[in-house]
Amino acid sequence: MTKTGDGAAAKPVVAFLGLGIMGTAMAARLVASGHYSKVVVWNRSADKCAPLVAAGAAAVGTPAEAVEAADVVFGMLADPKAALNVALGEGGVVSAMRAGKAYVDMSTVDEETSTRIGEAVAAAGGRFLEAPVSGSKKPAIDGQLIILAAGDESLFDECGPAFDTMGKRALFLGPLGAGARMKLVVNGVMGAVMGAFSEGMALAEASGLRQSDLLEVLSLGAMACPMFALKGPALAQRSYPPAFKLVSQQKDMRLALALGDALDQPLPVMAAANEQYKKAKALGLGDSDFSAVYEAYGHEKKA
Amino acid sequence: MTKTGDGAAAKPVVAFLGLGIMGTAMAARLVASGHYSKVVVWNRSADKCAPLVAAGAAAVGTPAEAVEAADVVFGMLADPKAALNVALGEGGVVSAMRAGKAYVDMSTVDEETSTRIGEAVAAAGGRFLEAPVSGSKKPAIDGQLIILAAGDESLFDECGPAFDTMGKRALFLGPLGAGARMKLVVNGVMGAVMGAFSEGMALAEASGLRQSDLLEVLSLGAMACPMFALKGPALAQRSYPPAFKLVSQQKDMRLALALGDALDQPLPVMAAANEQYKKAKALGLGDSDFSAVYEAYGHEKKA
Amino acid sequence: MTKTGDGAAAKPVVAFLGLGIMGTAMAARLVASGHYSKVVVWNRSADKCAPLVAAGAAAVGTPAEAVEAADVVFGMLADPKAALNVALGEGGVVSAMRAGKAYVDMSTVDEETSTRIGEAVAAAGGRFLEAPVSGSKKPAIDGQLIILAAGDESLFDECGPAFDTMGKRALFLGPLGAGARMKLVVNGVMGAVMGAFSEGMALAEASGLRQSDLLEVLSLGAMACPMFALKGPALAQRSYPPAFKLVSQQKDMRLALALGDALDQPLPVMAAANEQYKKAKALGLGDSDFSAVYEAYGHEKKA
Amino acid sequence: MTKTGDGAAAKPVVAFLGLGIMGTAMAARLVASGHYSKVVVWNRSADKCAPLVAAGAAAVGTPAEAVEAADVVFGMLADPKAALNVALGEGGVVSAMRAGKAYVDMSTVDEETSTRIGEAVAAAGGRFLEAPVSGSKKPAIDGQLIILAAGDESLFDECGPAFDTMGKRALFLGPLGAGARMKLVVNGVMGAVMGAFSEGMALAEASGLRQSDLLEVLSLGAMACPMFALKGPALAQRSYPPAFKLVSQQKDMRLALALGDALDQPLPVMAAANEQYKKAKALGLGDSDFSAVYEAYGHEKKA
Repeated sequence: MTKTGDGAAAKPVVAFLGLGIMGTAMAARLVASGHYSKVVVWNRSADKCAPLVAAGAAAVGTPAEAVEAADVVFGMLADPKAALNVALGEGGVVSAMRAGKAYVDMSTVDEETSTRIGEAVAAAGGRFLEAPVSGSKKPAIDGQLIILAAGDESLFDECGPAFDTMGKRALFLGPLGAGARMKLVVNGVMGAVMGAFSEGMALAEASGLRQSDLLEVLSLGAMACPMFALKGPALAQRSYPPAFKLVSQQKDMRLALALGDALDQPLPVMAAANEQYKKAKALGLGDSDFSAVYEAYGHEKKA
Repeated sequence: MTKTGDGAAAKPVVAFLGLGIMGTAMAARLVASGHYSKVVVWNRSADKCAPLVAAGAAAVGTPAEAVEAADVVFGMLADPKAALNVALGEGGVVSAMRAGKAYVDMSTVDEETSTRIGEAVAAAGGRFLEAPVSGSKKPAIDGQLIILAAGDESLFDECGPAFDTMGKRALFLGPLGAGARMKLVVNGVMGAVMGAFSEGMALAEASGLRQSDLLEVLSLGAMACPMFALKGPALAQRSYPPAFKLVSQQKDMRLALALGDALDQPLPVMAAANEQYKKAKALGLGDSDFSAVYEAYGHEKKA
Repeated sequence: MTKTGDGAAAKPVVAFLGLGIMGTAMAARLVASGHYSKVVVWNRSADKCAPLVAAGAAAVGTPAEAVEAADVVFGMLADPKAALNVALGEGGVVSAMRAGKAYVDMSTVDEETSTRIGEAVAAAGGRFLEAPVSGSKKPAIDGQLIILAAGDESLFDECGPAFDTMGKRALFLGPLGAGARMKLVVNGVMGAVMGAFSEGMALAEASGLRQSDLLEVLSLGAMACPMFALKGPALAQRSYPPAFKLVSQQKDMRLALALGDALDQPLPVMAAANEQYKKAKALGLGDSDFSAVYEAYGHEKKA
Repeated sequence: MTKTGDGAAAKPVVAFLGLGIMGTAMAARLVASGHYSKVVVWNRSADKCAPLVAAGAAAVGTPAEAVEAADVVFGMLADPKAALNVALGEGGVVSAMRAGKAYVDMSTVDEETSTRIGEAVAAAGGRFLEAPVSGSKKPAIDGQLIILAAGDESLFDECGPAFDTMGKRALFLGPLGAGARMKLVVNGVMGAVMGAFSEGMALAEASGLRQSDLLEVLSLGAMACPMFALKGPALAQRSYPPAFKLVSQQKDMRLALALGDALDQPLPVMAAANEQYKKAKALGLGDSDFSAVYEAYGHEKKA
């Protein structure tokens, strides 16, 4: 970072790649923060850049140009394929990577994808951080995301102001891959907890209790899990507008089980829950919210 | 309730049977509340009555005498056997029960015990409410218990001031037995959720993540279950001082599964979790806290 | 046993109580065997005695008369209630029991029922053996039953000729209750094996293999379980005429799991299978053959 | 196939690649059968060819030479990597493949490997059959293998005499991949059945029954699975000399579950059993026989 004449550090330049719903909200916060002398933006369809440019950002034509222009580049791509393409494709991040540059991939990708990108960045002399986030549109707009980072710790430390701008909490979890693994562990727990909750709701109804009473009792004690309050009414009404799709939840449970398998870690409760998600998928509920696993519990007698 | 000369209702008389840790705290709140013209107390070992008498209560020699003296009698006994004995034994509640009298059993007992007591009270012309509580010593002292009531709804309504004095929330759940069933449903969910949490903690450790990071990530989102914050450190340190014994939790899971069995309600996640509690019992952990189910997950490689 | 003048032992007298399908076939074999000087028979509806009397048996009016007349009395009653009534009711076995007499109950009953009868027989000075059988009508007619005996071992030894007449193999399993427990263990294994087989059949179909090919492959190796050959066609045709009702199989699995629970023995595979039987019961298949558990595996896409 | 002058078909030429324990026994049977005018053999270490050459076979230096010399080539390689190398490597089968030639791969490989080889053979104009076998050394020597074939059905028909020579039964299961899938289905069932059996043996012991009695009772009825007789003594003695390694069984269960996952087919009993194999692996039993899953059931109290 260049020193200015009067001894103060010049504000750095950052770039943001991928301006979907999440990326646009995150980049807008960086622009508005005032931490950066310039915020460079890029998106595959260039028209998404316009609102950010209007707010003060500078658009470029390729990820490589963004790397040239910025000290640190952030990416928020839709899926592993897009993340790989932006990082390793023609005109991609790695094509311009060199010592002194850094890439922070905030996309949700699997450990293998993340490792592949990280190794390519490192081979080109740059630094890399995986930093997938937890949270959706509203927390992105409000700067309330949770950031699960792993890889280069010095880069994590330097990103402090950016992460403070985009999230309410950023954790550094360890070597590359730890972010992806943490998401699997959390989603594995979440899937099994939702299974347990579904069974409680089903048993309440089958045994003549009001589901609303169960929800209230759960809310009053050590089991006051926000997810129960959030999803309980959906189960009670058997209507599941998708916030997190069942097919994605089942995929994460499968991967969490595969992780346990590779480590000889028995996970019988998660395994039992996973079978219920499979059942729900077979019932055609893959595109419903993952709380639709409740339908796998059989309501033949109640219909 | 007798009217006084000037038209105002006289304050009623209540009685409290069973002065263990919980009962003493609950009766003390009734005495201090000022809602009652007299609070009558009884305990099998009479010396437990002294502190309450010092605070203004009146001691009697048998449950039957308490019924004679009071409009409504509350009971808080240690277990089903004690509850049955106080209700149906010689000099017990039912021996003095008659129209106009009422019994509220706040002990934690099974549905069969509760039904037996309730039927005997009704046969003698009285009204009955089962009202087991959720919460331990501190909430009892602070009047923050959760009261799960079932049986006679008019009696529930009349107990409003008493329940407000002893608890932060009282729910009327339905006909006799509903209170006992609600406890089983809640504890069934809790046992499975603890199993899911144990698997997450074990998988975190096995895959090289810090358990403290998992606990923090869980605390930041929809999975911020107070139980995780409460029990997480115990798992991390593998030390399980008993708050709710594993043997009791396993018993409740068994009964919840039996309830599902009687109703043809599949509960595969609870069933898988139950096998882990059995495993933990076989490891000699029955008297540890139920979070010791974590030990059933095998830590052979880590020891 | 009375000695005759010439030093040879007189043939003993036996009795048989309960002439349903099984009992009639078993008693007929005793009559035809020539081992006994007399075979006394009794049934609640006396008309069932006629065919056996025609074959040489002697009918009596009460179980007590049968005990008076015979050295050893066999019982084969429909269920625990009938077994208890014949043993302990008015004019029942125990009312005439005394030293030198013996009762062999071949009914399928639970351990508690068997123990209750055995203790009453012993208290009256007699000897008792529980001896439930495995096998149905055809093996009973052909003398090919499997006899699972427990209780008084000297009585078991003396019953050798009778058991050889009725069964192909009689095992003495240990103290009273061991016969009932062995049936639970065997049926617990059987239920889980049928679950595993159902999953194989479902997976074969889902993955485009012929179920008939799977059946043949299984029949050729270490997995050549006769049950697979017996039940495979039922699964393939999704038609389940009852040989052993699903509701009975599920009850035995529940009891096997309860036995494991009492002994802290984890049984996760049986527990997972049990949930499938519950699911099949909820689908209305309780009165079908237990192989109808196959329907619990969901064939939504194939219908 | 060339006709001879007198109108009879000349005997064909076959080749055999891979002379391990299994391959040597299988090739020796082909040599001895008299069905072939010549049997060509190849092995990576050429010295393995000597005994077969002594018996009448002709050795060649590469798989490609074997294809040149023979009408049909059989392969029996150790693992997917070896199978791929022999088929697709330099001097491999495909390098010499052309119309009129055929390759039958009898190695145990995954569906992906088999499909890759099959597509390469077809692209070169040849015909392909996957034909993994069930059975080990002794059945190979005795010509009692079970052959699970899939792919080109005309080739399967032509291989009739060869399969009759090597096996007791050959099944044609369908399009390429069906052989690999059938092995997964069978091993998935086998793993769950062994889990159920282990639970029965553990429950018998825990409840005071003799395991030898359970084995006998199982052997007498519909549950007379040869595997129980074969593995029962190993469990009773808790000694597990490897016939089929636990680590291989667990891998096949994992793949069977992955197959079910891809097809939305719930497999809760297999999934519960799989967790026990993982537990046994964590106990260090991966190289023991798969029946060592019995150790996962906890024998803490019995040691």
